[in-house]
Formats: sequence, C-alpha cells, structure tokens
Amino acid sequence: MAETWAILGRAIHAPAAVETLPRALIIITGDGKIGTVDPSVSPQDTRLRAFRSAGRLIELAEDQVLLPGLVDLHVHAPQFPQLGTALDRPLAEWLQTHTFPLERRYADLAFAESVYQRLVDTLLAHGTTTALYFSTIHLPATQRLAEICLARGQRALVGRVAMDHLEQCPDDYRDASAETAIADTRALIDFIRAMPGNDAGLVRPAVTPRFVPACTDELLAGLGALAREAGCHVQTHCSESDWAHHHVKARCGCSDAEALDRAGLLGRRSVLAHANFIGPADAARIRLRGAAVAHCPLSNIYFAGAVFPLRVMLAEGLRIGLGSDIAGGASASLFEAARQAVACSRMLESGTNPALPAARRGVPGSRVDFRTAFRLATAGGGEARDLPIGLFRPGYAFDAVMLQSGLPDGQVVFAPEDEGETVLERIVMGGGRGDIAAVWVAGRLVRARGG
Amino acid sequence: MAETWAILGRAIHAPAAVETLPRALIIITGDGKIGTVDPSVSPQDTRLRAFRSAGRLIELAEDQVLLPGLVDLHVHAPQFPQLGTALDRPLAEWLQTHTFPLERRYADLAFAESVYQRLVDTLLAHGTTTALYFSTIHLPATQRLAEICLARGQRALVGRVAMDHLEQCPDDYRDASAETAIADTRALIDFIRAMPGNDAGLVRPAVTPRFVPACTDELLAGLGALAREAGCHVQTHCSESDWAHHHVKARCGCSDAEALDRAGLLGRRSVLAHANFIGPADAARIRLRGAAVAHCPLSNIYFAGAVFPLRVMLAEGLRIGLGSDIAGGASASLFEAARQAVACSRMLESGTNPALPAARRGVPGSRVDFRTAFRLATAGGGEARDLPIGLFRPGYAFDAVMLQSGLPDGQVVFAPEDEGETVLERIVMGGGRGDIAAVWVAGRLVRARGG
Repeated sequence: MAETWAILGRAIHAPAAVETLPRALIIITGDGKIGTVDPSVSPQDTRLRAFRSAGRLIELAEDQVLLPGLVDLHVHAPQFPQLGTALDRPLAEWLQTHTFPLERRYADLAFAESVYQRLVDTLLAHGTTTALYFSTIHLPATQRLAEICLARGQRALVGRVAMDHLEQCPDDYRDASAETAIADTRALIDFIRAMPGNDAGLVRPAVTPRFVPACTDELLAGLGALAREAGCHVQTHCSESDWAHHHVKARCGCSDAEALDRAGLLGRRSVLAHANFIGPADAARIRLRGAAVAHCPLSNIYFAGAVFPLRVMLAEGLRIGLGSDIAGGASASLFEAARQAVACSRMLESGTNPALPAARRGVPGSRVDFRTAFRLATAGGGEARDLPIGLFRPGYAFDAVMLQSGLPDGQVVFAPEDEGETVLERIVMGGGRGDIAAVWVAGRLVRARGG
Repeated sequence: MAETWAILGRAIHAPAAVETLPRALIIITGDGKIGTVDPSVSPQDTRLRAFRSAGRLIELAEDQVLLPGLVDLHVHAPQFPQLGTALDRPLAEWLQTHTFPLERRYADLAFAESVYQRLVDTLLAHGTTTALYFSTIHLPATQRLAEICLARGQRALVGRVAMDHLEQCPDDYRDASAETAIADTRALIDFIRAMPGNDAGLVRPAVTPRFVPACTDELLAGLGALAREAGCHVQTHCSESDWAHHHVKARCGCSDAEALDRAGLLGRRSVLAHANFIGPADAARIRLRGAAVAHCPLSNIYFAGAVFPLRVMLAEGLRIGLGSDIAGGASASLFEAARQAVACSRMLESGTNPALPAARRGVPGSRVDFRTAFRLATAGGGEARDLPIGLFRPGYAFDAVMLQSGLPDGQVVFAPEDEGETVLERIVMGGGRGDIAAVWVAGRLVRARGG
C-alpha cells in the first residue's frame, strides 16, 4: 500500500450547494481514499511541516484549483472514431450507416485496442476520472477495454452491449440469441471481477442491454435476472427520442421505464441514459427503484428532439448525472456537456421561437445554472453511480482534477479577485482539456501536464 | 513589400457550398493577398520546385488542413475580463452590476492596455483573424486597442461606444452629450486612418452606437451623418431581446431596424448584432440597405430568450456572419459559436418541450448544419464585413488558420479515410484553440504553435 500524502490549496466541490474550501488540506491515505479534509488550514499547522519535510505535500499555487474528478455516465467507447461526424443525419441513418458498421469492426481486437487506449487517455486528459462505457457485442474487445481502464487507472463501469432483436439490429451486428448474449455478459462480469490488480473494484462490470427496441423480452428478462444474481450495475437507454418512446409503447404497451422495471433492470445500480420523454409516473417509478439518469445534453440536440426537463426531475428527487454520450455527443469534455446542460435548460425555459410572445414560448422554471451543472458532473455522477466519489469528504475516493489559470492552450483565466464560485463559473462556462494540469484517480496521479 | 511565397496542402473553404481543395497551391503576393489558387497541383508542377528551392513554400502534412481565418463580427473588448461569469443574471443586472462598472475602468489606460493585448493575442490563438470590436466610451483606450490590433497583425474594425441616454446609461458611465460622443467618434476615425503602418487599412474605424435604447435621437442622427460623411463602417445591436425590441417600439414607434435606418445607420457597411426579433419588414429593409447581421448564438442563450431564425433569414437573402459576443458569450472560440449556431438551429426546429407532441414543438425547416455554420464563420463574415476575406480566391487577403490532427491539447483527430467535409465537420463540431497550429493575417504569420 502506498504512503499517505496530502494536497493543499483552493478546492471546490458541491455536497449540496457549491462549497469552496479556501485553503484545504486533504490527506489521502494509502488506499487512495480521503482520510481528512480541513477546509481552511493555518500556515502554522504542524501537519503541513510534517508532510512537506517528508516530500509528500502537493501545494497548489494561487492560479490553481482542485475539483472532484468528472464522472461521465454515458460513453459509447467504440464510437470514439466517429466523434463529431454525421450528426446531421437522422438517428436511424446514423446508426445503420455509420455507427453499426463501425461497431462491427471491434471483432478486430487490434483495432479495438488502439481505439480504446486513445479513448481512455483522452477522457483522462479531459478530467474524466470515472466513465461508464458501453462497448460492442464483442467479448474480447470489451475485456480489453476493461484491462485498459485498469492499466491506465481510470475508474470505470464497462458493459458488453446486448442486442438480439431481429428487426431492430442488423444481420451482421447482433447477438446470435438471448442465450449467447446473457452468457457473454456473464463471462464479462466474471472476467472483470477477476482481473489481477482489480481487488479494489476500480473497474466494474455493467449489464448493458442496448435499449428496449434492440432487445427481445427474453433477453431483457435474462439480463435482469443476471444483474440481480451478480449484484452488478445496469446501464441502458431510456425514452431518448419520440421514436424510441413510441416504439416501446407500441411493442410493450408501456413506457421504457416500466418495461425495464418489469424485466428487473430498474434498481439502485441502474443508470438510464437520456430519459427525455419520461412522464410523472416514470419519474416516480425511477425514484422508487433508486435508479439514476444520465443527462446527455450534447447528443440530445441532435437525436432527442426535445430537452430533458432537468430541473423538474431534480425536484422530483431523481439522482442525475451527466453523460457525454460519445459519439452522439461531439465532445469528450464533460465541461462542454455541463455548459450545454445549462444552455439547454435555458432554452427549455425561454423557448426558442421568436415569433411567439415570450409568455407562450417556453416552460418557466426550467433553468439550471453552472452550480447545478457542476454538481451533476461530480457529486451527482457519484450518487448515480452509487459510489463514494465526486466529493472531498473523508471516506470518499481521492479522484480529482487540478485546473490552472492561463495555461498556453487553456481557455480559462481567473482574476485575482475571483471568489470560488466565480472561478468555478469560469471553468464550467469555458473550461476544457487545455485548462487541466493534473488528474488523480484513487489517489494515483494518472495524468500530468507534460507527462 | 515582402516576397511572394506559397503554401501547399489540403484546404477547405465555402464559396457557396463547402469546397475541398485536395492539394491546393496558394500563392501569396507581397501585399499579403492571394495571387493564385490551384486546387489540385501536380507534384511535378515546376512552381513547387521554384518555391521550394527558394525556401518559400510551406508544405502541409497529411494531418494538417488550411481554413480561411475566422471572422468574429461582434466582440465587446472591455468585457473580456468577465468572460464566463454572471451569465445567470438577468441582462439589466448583468449590465448595471457587472458590465458597466467594468467598462468604466477603461479610463485607466494601463488597465486597458493589459486587457486588450491579452484579448487580441487570445483571439488570434483561437484563429480569429478579423474581429469587430466594441470598446468603451474612452477615446484613449480605444485608440490603444486599434494600435494593438495593428501591432499584433489582427484585421479589425474598432469602434468607440457611443451612449448618451440619461435614463438608460449610468451617470458615471455615459457620454457627456451627443456632441462630445460624435466628436470623439470622429477623432477615433481620424486617428485610426492615420496610424503609421495602417496604409492598407488592416485596422478600420466603426461608428458604434451601443444600441438604440442607450442613444438619444440626436446622437443616432449625428452618428448616421458622420458614418456617411466619413464613409466608414457602423456596428450596433438590433432587436436582441424582447425587452430591447419592445422598448424601441415604445420609444420610437418602430422597430430597431427602422429606427437605425431613419438615423442613416443602416447601410452596406453596417453590422447588426443579434437581430433575433426582426420581422419580415425588418428583414426586407436590412436586405434593401445591404446591411449584415452578426448572429451570436452563445450569448442569445442567456440574454435573448429566443433563437435567431438563421435559416429563414439566409433564405431571405440577408448577409450573415457569426459573433462570439464576448462576454455575453462565454467563449472566445468562433468554432464554439459555430457549433452553437448549429445546436440552436436544431432546437428551434425541434422545439424543446418534451411535454408537447413533436408536431407542435418546434419550427420545421429551421436547422442548419456544420457547412452553413462554417460558411458564416468565414466567407459569411467577409461578406458581412464587405471585404475580400474568408475565401481562398485570387484577390482575397491571405487570412488563414492551419489546424492539425491529434495535437497534445487538441480535441480533433482526423481519420486517414476522412474526406474534406468530414474533416471540416470534426473541426466545427469539436475543434478549438488547441487544434490550431498556425494563423496568418494578410500573408503574415501572426501565431504559430510554440511561438
């Protein structure tokens, strides 16, 4: 076990409201967890001297700030090569002409390895310390993704996509049967849990039905049983678009949330991507089961046709975090997702059509601000993931990003008089990869500028 | 006069549709203009050998691409220090509590100089080769901004903001009278035109009434007469928000566009920021006068309350470019403005309220794609500015940015099989400062990676 070390400087997190720790001393124990958080330590504190003389104190400069690591609740790992392309196509064409042919290529393990290494490195560089990955139907490539996350030190949920529906999946990219899909999912769970060096569970498996339309009832029920039996996470899509929402209603006679619930796929460890078209009954059901929502504003612009009513759903008590939805979303930056969450909430509130009178244009009371978006990207993601991450609090994992003002390729510059909230606002509204100086996961430095 | 030189490589621009020049040879004459464009030169071309042996050929690698320099039609230079802050405040509070107190500080020339140098450098690093700047009411600071643009080699319009209305401007930040505002505007015009080294007009003056509500009728008319007399550009705001739109209607009995037209401020060299609430009659008037619109999607999210109907206005024949609207917009990147233009157009088309049926949610036919957004950011800006910039075409200025795939802090990675349009889509949907390797204005290298 590594030695205890400490970090000193301005830190900002969001237990509920945003909280600035003006001169925090955070002590990280050898297991990568936070032992102590002192929000405003005195320069005379004897612990500082002790850590400093032992060479185990990182001291932030005035122009640096520490945030919890970002939690990306929805990433399609195999789609990374098509990032930023074909978004002007309708969803069906995007999937059939661009996405499925790409995903098929992950039968080639060498191709998978090259993409997944680049993806994990890229997300770490963007400050994403935890990612929830959909892979493809290929077990070996999915295993490789899990190994890469572990080797690179990124906290992750990894799921092999299950999709067996004859009409909704292409002939050359589909599980042979519900049975084989379930067997491969089980094999992945066993593989990940047995990976050498994964005793602490940095990487965990997730049961991953693509979405209800792509899965037979038999597959959904089988995966629900497996998730319960194995006690593992579940990730899937839920009511993303008008089409998906109405398709499930027509096929199952109920909403996505209810269909997932019937199959035993809606529980405290379930993360539902999108949920744009859930109604009050769905929201109540999701809350009752303790499931979480991955809000993906970047992709919703292109493929949803509406804005997820984030503020209402937060008020309903749902646990919600953010997803980049690579590659339906065009950015690997969760900061970009966070500011788009703010932007979309504003456009839901104001409406968009200038030909309508203001009073009839939008949905009053829909806006969220940078504080909420930041919370979703950190503590909200941790809650959705049902793990102690996303806060600077004893017992939580030390997953953190250090941002620095005025870096050569950075976009953020703090003013000397900026208070913590203003620093945070600048970061959320304008920050990106170029502003990140260092990244830690479970107490381990996984990325440093120039390193 | 400098020597003729040439650049060879993949270039993409948008004369009308997007056009890829797969292996372009662009010859730049000593005056910084494009002499020749050969879209697909043979490796055996004798000109290549001649330029190469003279050490006057820049050869792009496979992973590099040349685009026209970006034209930012709307920048509030003094607001740069507040970039990314206070956007959750209503416009009136944002102006009175944050913006006006900041703008007042430009009475301090040293402060102005430090901000403006950083701003111009930042915009060049973001690939903005032409910017239209509003400054403050302070003549010396505005002169300094013009000098900095010229020294740094950025093409610019610079305007001293005129604002004399007793009720709409704060007592401590207002022109003393219409007369002094006009005199100072005239002094700026004379100063900029006489700047040593500005013979080619790299930096030009703009008559800049803040917006109709902030100006008395006397000031508007006086500035209109001055613009006509001096033959110079005009920049102002137009129908940005419900409030501004209705305020002008109540005060002037007409729309912003008509009020500006009456004052002689609507001509071929006028750039109107926003124009979100213009109706068909305004659009016809703007087209008739040949004025242009600076579409500012990033700030409209926060301060407009609706989406500019971009596609309809393009179909109406308006000349339209993009503006960052620093600091109402939180990003200095025109690529970020471009992708938000696409996003906003999609959200106008689809609507935002998931509780409405899809058919009643939005405004069909409103979407634009990355091609249109790119055109606005380059050729569209050039047309709006009424200058030969924004295209790789003989006689046009050589204002260009070179982007490179996979740079250390970059966000864009091209695939080997990417065609020109796909490369462009990746850049527009995901690119930023970290992807820019070099920037030229008027044939001069003004920014290079590591330089």
